[in-house]
Amino acid sequence: MTPAKAFGLTIRRLRTQISYSQEKLAMISGLDRTYISLLERGQRQPTITTIFQLAQALDISSAELVSNVEVYIRENPSD
Amino acid sequence: MTPAKAFGLTIRRLRTQISYSQEKLAMISGLDRTYISLLERGQRQPTITTIFQLAQALDISSAELVSNVEVYIRENPSD
Repeated sequence: MTPAKAFGLTIRRLRTQISYSQEKLAMISGLDRTYISLLERGQRQPTITTIFQLAQALDISSAELVSNVEVYIRENPSD
Repeated sequence: MTPAKAFGLTIRRLRTQISYSQEKLAMISGLDRTYISLLERGQRQPTITTIFQLAQALDISSAELVSNVEVYIRENPSD
């Protein structure tokens, strides 16, 4: 489980938990919907700026977002 | 204070706290010394993979590293 893949799956989980579509998350974060789709599939590496933008849009701290990614990796080491 | 700039200054602070040279941090993290120098000056955007590599090399969690970046931004909003 790479950080990029775990990040994508974490974003998808947090986004669906608050019933946001990719379109809505894109609008609120200022990112492109296609880019969010690529991120969620682990096909793009988010930068620190993107991480901060998405955390703000999801109404959590960036540290909390990254903590969720770390938990995901720990719980799914072989994915 | 952008996330990239705050990240660079945070890395520099954490690195010097444990008396690591850029060379030593480069060796332990597997990153290039020049790249670490650019990161510390806020001239490169670290990706999630780089963040995880640097956190591991600094012996802290990635969430803790990002938390330090958030604190830095809060304490230096106008830099």
